Amino acid sequence: MCASQLAPLVRSDTELTYVEIEHGPASIECEFDAMLATPGTVARVIAAEQEGIDAVVINCMDDPGLRAAREMVSIPILGPCETAMHLAAMLAHQFSVVTVLDHLEPQFVNHAKVYGVPDKLASVRSVSIPVLDLEEDEERLVDALTTQSALAVEEDGAHAIIFGCTGMLGVAEAVERQLEGRGISGVPVLDPLVVALKIAESLVDLRLTHSKRTFPPPSRKAIKGYESITALLAAGVA
Amino acid sequence: MCASQLAPLVRSDTELTYVEIEHGPASIECEFDAMLATPGTVARVIAAEQEGIDAVVINCMDDPGLRAAREMVSIPILGPCETAMHLAAMLAHQFSVVTVLDHLEPQFVNHAKVYGVPDKLASVRSVSIPVLDLEEDEERLVDALTTQSALAVEEDGAHAIIFGCTGMLGVAEAVERQLEGRGISGVPVLDPLVVALKIAESLVDLRLTHSKRTFPPPSRKAIKGYESITALLAAGVA
Amino acid sequence: MCASQLAPLVRSDTELTYVEIEHGPASIECEFDAMLATPGTVARVIAAEQEGIDAVVINCMDDPGLRAAREMVSIPILGPCETAMHLAAMLAHQFSVVTVLDHLEPQFVNHAKVYGVPDKLASVRSVSIPVLDLEEDEERLVDALTTQSALAVEEDGAHAIIFGCTGMLGVAEAVERQLEGRGISGVPVLDPLVVALKIAESLVDLRLTHSKRTFPPPSRKAIKGYESITALLAAGVA
Amino acid sequence: MCASQLAPLVRSDTELTYVEIEHGPASIECEFDAMLATPGTVARVIAAEQEGIDAVVINCMDDPGLRAAREMVSIPILGPCETAMHLAAMLAHQFSVVTVLDHLEPQFVNHAKVYGVPDKLASVRSVSIPVLDLEEDEERLVDALTTQSALAVEEDGAHAIIFGCTGMLGVAEAVERQLEGRGISGVPVLDPLVVALKIAESLVDLRLTHSKRTFPPPSRKAIKGYESITALLAAGVA
Amino acid sequence: MCASQLAPLVRSDTELTYVEIEHGPASIECEFDAMLATPGTVARVIAAEQEGIDAVVINCMDDPGLRAAREMVSIPILGPCETAMHLAAMLAHQFSVVTVLDHLEPQFVNHAKVYGVPDKLASVRSVSIPVLDLEEDEERLVDALTTQSALAVEEDGAHAIIFGCTGMLGVAEAVERQLEGRGISGVPVLDPLVVALKIAESLVDLRLTHSKRTFPPPSRKAIKGYESITALLAAGVA
Amino acid sequence: MCASQLAPLVRSDTELTYVEIEHGPASIECEFDAMLATPGTVARVIAAEQEGIDAVVINCMDDPGLRAAREMVSIPILGPCETAMHLAAMLAHQFSVVTVLDHLEPQFVNHAKVYGVPDKLASVRSVSIPVLDLEEDEERLVDALTTQSALAVEEDGAHAIIFGCTGMLGVAEAVERQLEGRGISGVPVLDPLVVALKIAESLVDLRLTHSKRTFPPPSRKAIKGYESITALLAAGVA
Repeated sequence: MCASQLAPLVRSDTELTYVEIEHGPASIECEFDAMLATPGTVARVIAAEQEGIDAVVINCMDDPGLRAAREMVSIPILGPCETAMHLAAMLAHQFSVVTVLDHLEPQFVNHAKVYGVPDKLASVRSVSIPVLDLEEDEERLVDALTTQSALAVEEDGAHAIIFGCTGMLGVAEAVERQLEGRGISGVPVLDPLVVALKIAESLVDLRLTHSKRTFPPPSRKAIKGYESITALLAAGVA
Repeated sequence: MCASQLAPLVRSDTELTYVEIEHGPASIECEFDAMLATPGTVARVIAAEQEGIDAVVINCMDDPGLRAAREMVSIPILGPCETAMHLAAMLAHQFSVVTVLDHLEPQFVNHAKVYGVPDKLASVRSVSIPVLDLEEDEERLVDALTTQSALAVEEDGAHAIIFGCTGMLGVAEAVERQLEGRGISGVPVLDPLVVALKIAESLVDLRLTHSKRTFPPPSRKAIKGYESITALLAAGVA
Repeated sequence: MCASQLAPLVRSDTELTYVEIEHGPASIECEFDAMLATPGTVARVIAAEQEGIDAVVINCMDDPGLRAAREMVSIPILGPCETAMHLAAMLAHQFSVVTVLDHLEPQFVNHAKVYGVPDKLASVRSVSIPVLDLEEDEERLVDALTTQSALAVEEDGAHAIIFGCTGMLGVAEAVERQLEGRGISGVPVLDPLVVALKIAESLVDLRLTHSKRTFPPPSRKAIKGYESITALLAAGVA
Repeated sequence: MCASQLAPLVRSDTELTYVEIEHGPASIECEFDAMLATPGTVARVIAAEQEGIDAVVINCMDDPGLRAAREMVSIPILGPCETAMHLAAMLAHQFSVVTVLDHLEPQFVNHAKVYGVPDKLASVRSVSIPVLDLEEDEERLVDALTTQSALAVEEDGAHAIIFGCTGMLGVAEAVERQLEGRGISGVPVLDPLVVALKIAESLVDLRLTHSKRTFPPPSRKAIKGYESITALLAAGVA
Repeated sequence: MCASQLAPLVRSDTELTYVEIEHGPASIECEFDAMLATPGTVARVIAAEQEGIDAVVINCMDDPGLRAAREMVSIPILGPCETAMHLAAMLAHQFSVVTVLDHLEPQFVNHAKVYGVPDKLASVRSVSIPVLDLEEDEERLVDALTTQSALAVEEDGAHAIIFGCTGMLGVAEAVERQLEGRGISGVPVLDPLVVALKIAESLVDLRLTHSKRTFPPPSRKAIKGYESITALLAAGVA
Repeated sequence: MCASQLAPLVRSDTELTYVEIEHGPASIECEFDAMLATPGTVARVIAAEQEGIDAVVINCMDDPGLRAAREMVSIPILGPCETAMHLAAMLAHQFSVVTVLDHLEPQFVNHAKVYGVPDKLASVRSVSIPVLDLEEDEERLVDALTTQSALAVEEDGAHAIIFGCTGMLGVAEAVERQLEGRGISGVPVLDPLVVALKIAESLVDLRLTHSKRTFPPPSRKAIKGYESITALLAAGVA
């Protein structure tokens, strides 16, 4: 479903493939979930480069495996959180992240620190809807996102909004319209997965990728377990 | 000449116009020069929106008029410094700016603070070549850029390089190759004008522009002088 | 009027001249207005040095032209925003700026970053009175300033107040008294134009001026337009 | 071997168990290695709590799984990097980390940001010895650590040294003595595994553990793969 | 009384001595009080080292004399504020300090800056009970601490609480229980004197002390007054 | 001698009194020395206010007693370190402190943090001359100050210099001239005692003093010892 939503958003000369990871949790709402999603994500990234894919966007706002994946490949790997934070920082004095659950605040604050934009993050708010319930009732989701976005603008000083879960895909325009209905206009609302996808296209055009000084390839060493990854690594060498 | 260099870099569905400002200095190498370039730049931006242009890139690494221009229009206005700093921050742990003249360091440090990425700026270095001499001897320019970029990597901890003048257009790949020749590989070299151009395309695709909370339209008031600007404003109202 | 208000505040051995700029907006309430005010301000500063003036205070809390002007001259040039922020930082744990309109918050936050005192700024508040209406009703102004200053102290943790517009000249003592009437005593209220004026006197006494490492004189180059400035520059050389 | 080195360092009323993880890399020298070590580490932590262990120290300076593990259990989980950075911050104005390989610098800078002590980290230096070679030649290791520690003190302003790999266990006193031999005395050298072990004892005494506001237990959801972890979770519920 | 409360908390192999200073104020609630307590504290520390004491904990959350004392001796000297801030920073995303009186906020903010953990301090709150009244009514104290701690968690984003006065000794568990009664569980409450005591034990075990690069011994010079200190110094030399 | 050097620097309507403290160390070169100087300094400040003095400048770059003194009085109390740091921050992109001895670096870094200008401090350097030897050989002092100032400019990026000891009084112009002789011109050299003196005059003119929110008067309580202070306090009440 996600793939069909994204397809119309890419350029006509861009071919989009959407792949689920083999092992991992049903949703990612904490560091434990993210940990479970990481090896599978990195394996998919390694496979993608081997298959000749030009760039990869990781479909989760915790950017799981972003750094490890960049060590393993040379094609651009984009995290929607990192990309949306930098784009929002360009467009607005400060931005807020509106995510699924309250307890994710430290994760976004830490990401802002590591990504280098701590002063740009006005606040983290949540709609209190678990990831797996996001698609259940789109109207409720849009309402909750609008309410929290309005509070972010009026109480926290946000000048732009980033959705804090890629599962909120496709409702940015609806939230922008509802914000305008409440008298809050001119506030960009960033759908992070779409943002990352378009910036991925730009990076390929620009022939730019992550620095190998920051993400050098690991030295080869024995690995116990992780057969799907070690098979890929062996294939890559062959 | 600049326009002809840039034209091949844009997408086939992008139409590129390159316009010089009417009043201003021969080059921009300080706050005084930038001041002289700002009203003309903002006037061109206002005219561009009136003419139906989708997005504007300001052709100077001091991003003159970026904030004033954004107040006056709704189309995306990109500063090459702001855009390149955020893109480099995504691709690398830290970046250095290699610019024309030493005394520009405070300008870039201040930009990094206001743009929200102060910890990402490893250093500012210069090739000690004034803007107007940049095109005189491309080989000398590439050599000087390579030398300073290598020092930025080896002594300042830079993992990516941003050219600190849009007049250095077109030599990023040559510098990357020469860095590799010196054993420094995998270091992205960002040509800021090109980067801003491609991100401008993305923003138009994304239907995203700067926040009107950060850049609200000025209230109308009497202006003495600046006939070219006041004429545009009158035209915009009519 | 402004000059007559300021005259009694300077020392008996200080001669005060108040000059309006030739071209510019009726008031300065955004980056666009500030841009329009900058060339005229810098022209006046250049003229002032040529006329033998000892120091110049720019009459606007956006400090328009402060950096460009300092490049062009050797006499001390003071911005009321920069000066008041540093003086308030000496006198109090944190200060708030109470300005004319809400949307100026980013401007003051950015100034605090560039001036080097970001942690000292507790908040920016506004009286919601445009600059040109400030003199209409002094009582209303004092009331609004007192209300916002009290909120800054009680809700934002401000220990000192800086007026965020030099057009609020002359009411600092009245606001201090009204704050005391509301049980808030011992909170310094800084009238930034007066503060800058007195620190200008000190700098002249101290024979100190801005660093020429930070503000080096621009190299000479062709300028299109700006006849009033180019005439001054030619006169300076002659 | 590690266990036998650590045993004499714990208190007589402390029982020490040293456990290797089941799946993972032969050593941890990058984000990819850390990723491979994380699920096994978290599984061991969950098992440890189920077995009635009082506290766990993760044996790696990247603190792999620290945050995910804390979500899953209530007993104190200590990362040697986090613990040593905070202890060194108490003892000295600034500290340097001397680690195995140069490219680990971003990892330690990012840790210092997330752990909240970015200004306390003077520099990251390395001995250029891979983890698996550390035990080969202790004399060479002590020499290299001393040389880099001396440079950290004299060139980077470090007032304390943290070893940047837990595989450097047991040589802190030797390095301190050699530093004194070079005229650098009074510089604490922290062996991070030992430091974490002793602070773990203190936390148990203090009946303090990590905040469940920062590390709330994950909600239960379907997990594909990771049988060893899901078995533990099922056992924990039963 | 304090000594009898602390005695059961130390290890069986730790001998605890509690000493009051000779000269100083009845309580410490401001910089003036802290100043009066400092020379006596430092004198006691010098005496302690001469008497063979292994480590000293200063009994005041302003850590009076911490830095001067460390210059004078080689044994570990612990400040409860510094120690508790670093331990809380390890256990939680952010912490709040709940102290006696509102006006102490700048002191704790400044300590967090100097100790290197400014981003970890969520807020400073107070129970509005002077130090000397703390023991009067323990129930009232526990209630007030619980109320302010709850507000710190719910309004300021604190994930851990540090008592802001060592006179609040002994009620941490009661506050934790009452917080749980209000639905706020899993929030560590740190009794700073106890925390410092246990970390002092660890430092002695670790044979670690403060850096002599940060706290070098003063050069000898004439001192007017302070006979009790000069007598100690003379004794130390003899 | 100091008084005679300062007298010509004050305005004709300023009366200057120079007072030594009764008890304290022969010089202040560390936290221990500063501690010994603090009570006597605060006592003199209290006496000064009782005697009708308008403002006080503390004669030491560690600003001993600055905060405690401000709690006790309402007249402006100036620290030369705090004042010079804020003035230098106005005049230059970054400044360096050139002080007497190397080990004072942490003191100045901590002051810059607490005073709110940490990013403005480029470096701390020293002439390696103890305070009491400063007056012995002025030529040597000027040479050493020039050498270290030149290094601060050329290697550390300083654009202004602050003397790091008030005992360096009177040689700022000589150092500026010698710097010019070495090709380093336009770098302000701040003599902190003189700077504080002139800003004290301005504050009196401005009728501004420190915030009583930051420095509230201590509540009265029993004090053991410190007879000279308690006598003053009793006199103040009477």
